[in-house]
Amino acid sequence: MEPSTEMRFSGWGTDADAGELSDHVIEWLEQRFGAALGSRVPPPQAADVRLTKSRLSTRAAEKLSSRVGAANVRTDHLTRLTHCAGKGYPDLLAVRAADKLLAPDAVVFPGDESDVRAILKTCAKQGIAVVPFGGGTSVVGGVTPLRGAFNSVISLDLGRMRQLISVDTKSQIGTFAAGLRGPELEHLLRARGFTLGHFPQSFEHSTVGGWVATRSAGQASSGYGRIDEKLLGAKLIAPAGELELAARPASAAGPDLRALVAGSEGALGVITEASLEISPAPEVTRYEALMLPSFAGAAEALRSLELQGEAPDITRASDENETQMGLAFAGIDGAKGKLLEGYLRRRGAAAGALVILGWEGASGSIDSRRRAALSLLKQHGAVGLGAGAGRTWAKNRFSTPYLRDHLLERAVMVETLETATTWSNLMRLYRGVGEALSAHAPIVGCHISHLYPSGASLYFTFVAPQDQRDPLAQWAAAKHEACDAIVANGGTITHHHAIGIDHRRYLKAEDGAAGVAALRAVKSSLDPSGLMNPGKLL
Amino acid sequence: MEPSTEMRFSGWGTDADAGELSDHVIEWLEQRFGAALGSRVPPPQAADVRLTKSRLSTRAAEKLSSRVGAANVRTDHLTRLTHCAGKGYPDLLAVRAADKLLAPDAVVFPGDESDVRAILKTCAKQGIAVVPFGGGTSVVGGVTPLRGAFNSVISLDLGRMRQLISVDTKSQIGTFAAGLRGPELEHLLRARGFTLGHFPQSFEHSTVGGWVATRSAGQASSGYGRIDEKLLGAKLIAPAGELELAARPASAAGPDLRALVAGSEGALGVITEASLEISPAPEVTRYEALMLPSFAGAAEALRSLELQGEAPDITRASDENETQMGLAFAGIDGAKGKLLEGYLRRRGAAAGALVILGWEGASGSIDSRRRAALSLLKQHGAVGLGAGAGRTWAKNRFSTPYLRDHLLERAVMVETLETATTWSNLMRLYRGVGEALSAHAPIVGCHISHLYPSGASLYFTFVAPQDQRDPLAQWAAAKHEACDAIVANGGTITHHHAIGIDHRRYLKAEDGAAGVAALRAVKSSLDPSGLMNPGKLL
Repeated sequence: MEPSTEMRFSGWGTDADAGELSDHVIEWLEQRFGAALGSRVPPPQAADVRLTKSRLSTRAAEKLSSRVGAANVRTDHLTRLTHCAGKGYPDLLAVRAADKLLAPDAVVFPGDESDVRAILKTCAKQGIAVVPFGGGTSVVGGVTPLRGAFNSVISLDLGRMRQLISVDTKSQIGTFAAGLRGPELEHLLRARGFTLGHFPQSFEHSTVGGWVATRSAGQASSGYGRIDEKLLGAKLIAPAGELELAARPASAAGPDLRALVAGSEGALGVITEASLEISPAPEVTRYEALMLPSFAGAAEALRSLELQGEAPDITRASDENETQMGLAFAGIDGAKGKLLEGYLRRRGAAAGALVILGWEGASGSIDSRRRAALSLLKQHGAVGLGAGAGRTWAKNRFSTPYLRDHLLERAVMVETLETATTWSNLMRLYRGVGEALSAHAPIVGCHISHLYPSGASLYFTFVAPQDQRDPLAQWAAAKHEACDAIVANGGTITHHHAIGIDHRRYLKAEDGAAGVAALRAVKSSLDPSGLMNPGKLL
Repeated sequence: MEPSTEMRFSGWGTDADAGELSDHVIEWLEQRFGAALGSRVPPPQAADVRLTKSRLSTRAAEKLSSRVGAANVRTDHLTRLTHCAGKGYPDLLAVRAADKLLAPDAVVFPGDESDVRAILKTCAKQGIAVVPFGGGTSVVGGVTPLRGAFNSVISLDLGRMRQLISVDTKSQIGTFAAGLRGPELEHLLRARGFTLGHFPQSFEHSTVGGWVATRSAGQASSGYGRIDEKLLGAKLIAPAGELELAARPASAAGPDLRALVAGSEGALGVITEASLEISPAPEVTRYEALMLPSFAGAAEALRSLELQGEAPDITRASDENETQMGLAFAGIDGAKGKLLEGYLRRRGAAAGALVILGWEGASGSIDSRRRAALSLLKQHGAVGLGAGAGRTWAKNRFSTPYLRDHLLERAVMVETLETATTWSNLMRLYRGVGEALSAHAPIVGCHISHLYPSGASLYFTFVAPQDQRDPLAQWAAAKHEACDAIVANGGTITHHHAIGIDHRRYLKAEDGAAGVAALRAVKSSLDPSGLMNPGKLL
């Protein structure tokens, strides 16, 4: 299999799927900003981006090539360029700056576990840092090729390791090589009658290894569970040893090491394989959109759904701001918007909170679950917007990141961040983070996207005219004040984006000094010289 | 609150609840053994047990007393005696031997977290090992007062720390002090309309801290979840620092440290507090017993129940041997047994597998869940034995450990061990362990007691005439061959009993050398001088 490097270096996804920015989005933003957007500045061409010079020694290159083949040790401009950065806002800024872009000294593509073992051995001997690279979709700096204390750094692209290793149909366990991406994985599983049910927004590009390394949550995780809940077994190859954890339904054999693999972020070793709970492929998938009178009311309604065991597999509720933004971006403003507003006002849900629901499963069970959920939501004042609106959401569920690229070309900063907390603390955290972001951005929206018996996630989007003198400082100020507000208001620093570089300074607030020390001790045990993904997580 | 030390030192529970050994149990065993049981040898009186001499230095005793009060630093015979051992078969043998019984040099009862902190500090300074003690119900040696490399050892009894700290009704989270025991905890929660739903066989005596430290599973964990799944937040006080993990529904902030607290077995620090998912108290609890034609068929039926989301909250299936033993011990043999056998034979389930089901919840939802489960089980050939048989099981659910004590008095070895594996591997593991045990015991029974989407637990009981020359060697031979069979057949070394002393040699098979090294690194970080529960877990 060929390594897949189809993601464009300069933004999300592929040029073919990028689409265009609609005039009504521009108009709406200009109205909100009270100023015209900048004129379009496209990202640089690949050839125009200057990378840091490759420092890989000839000796190291030879050693690596002798193991995996020269074709799998790449130092060409485009391969290095596509492994310079993830897809966070600072990543996009760095790529667009196009000068002295920090690039891996080489990109190495192992074909199997023994390759990974050999590469780590060579890197330990030669003093080369290793950045594991799956889909490259990190939005927290997780794949930035930092050298740490080392002289050079390679990006270790798992793209050649993408087999469906086995399916245990009786136990509903799939075992996957780490480099397998979402669509290919689902295609292989569906052919056997199963689904993983894991659909993060990055689904089209991200990998099994990346999901496990970052404790990913998918859009349907309220139904199918988060990746860390689905992780039954794993293999992690580290410089000083290997964790090979057999797939087990449960155990009481001391602390569960699966929880050290999940969230390890390439800093403890290379995840090469994961055994995950799979589910029968759904016969039917049904989406639906509703409007609730308020976000606070929607939160309470979603809590009831969850506690009564009636939560749909996909359950999301946007606050009033995000609802307005969503309608405007979908072109439902102006005359269309007035019509909708009248309809909703008559039903008591004008300027309300958009709720998206999705069910997956056998058609009979979906019908009864749907009836139960809708009946409960109607008690909370829900007004149906129909299956069409739900399908529109589903159609666009993986494409919103493209919008950020388009807006960046027009000098608009768009960024997202997420957290989670208990139900009793949810609105306090919502207000705290919202206030922090509002000081930095005229548009701040939020939605609840993952439900748990004890609480829910909050996902914030903020939009502001870019400060073109120092866009990174502008971003950092907003980001850090939002993170401080998360900590101050009892949220977790990240619900599904991981720590990476961006949240590293907040790990101590999350885990305490003794917790961070314990994790460092684990790292020292598995990676004594610290070559694994330096500068991330710990 | 007074420390509770009501558990008798010489066996399970209290004298008042111990009951008596029925004649039909004796008869049935004598028939199976082809020999008369030994005549009754009651355990020694407390005064007749000789303990190792207390080595606590006067200086250390003074230091500890000055902190927690002299009344809470006990060196009297009875207090030391009740903290010598857990309730495993080797524990019972050691207590009955009554000579040079390894005893803690003192038993210290902290009143709060600052006491715990101060005690650990004193012990670190004075070189005293610390064995955290909850309910003392470990069956794997978890509370044995080993000194490790230290001159003396204290048992740290959490019995004074048993507050319900808080209930977040909106988020369904209860926060409990570690020393709180099952009945008191349920009493406090029910008064607020909630239940923890955690009912291990040790429920009446074991504690929140013990459950978390050992990754306990309760009889209703198929419904309510295991304790490690319910753990949202925790406090662990270690010699070199404290883990204080806020209750969170979910996070992606690196490896989840909750998974280091769960299963820490007192070897990483003292768990002082846990925040656990709670549930609305059930309106109704309903039990039912059925007979299925075979254990293999029952396993398949239970898998279907689980995968179709129809598993009752309590779901257990005994193999043919355990079913026969259970009926005989309940007095359903002889003439009564013949009647039942005829009834079952006519329905195709003679010599079958006993299945116990239990539902908890609102009466309406129980009715529909019960109908769905029974209808599915009927397709697998289930014959109903009625609610009476189910209630009998429920009535006796916490009392079977007493039977072991009675039989030990009659020179019968009774021991249990448990494991778990995937559905596809379940019968292989069942046969492998069963064969290993059969070489050592004429009676070997097994049941499935916990269901997961990917597999289930297996719980073995084995019964043999005691080898009175060396009963410990007899036990060790059976135990180790069974454990070897578990490892060889792909099971986890323990599903809910923990590692303790007995499973320590198998941790490497479970976690691999690198995994054990990582855990040791965590221990060194939190407990650099190794004073926490030496000789257990790691």
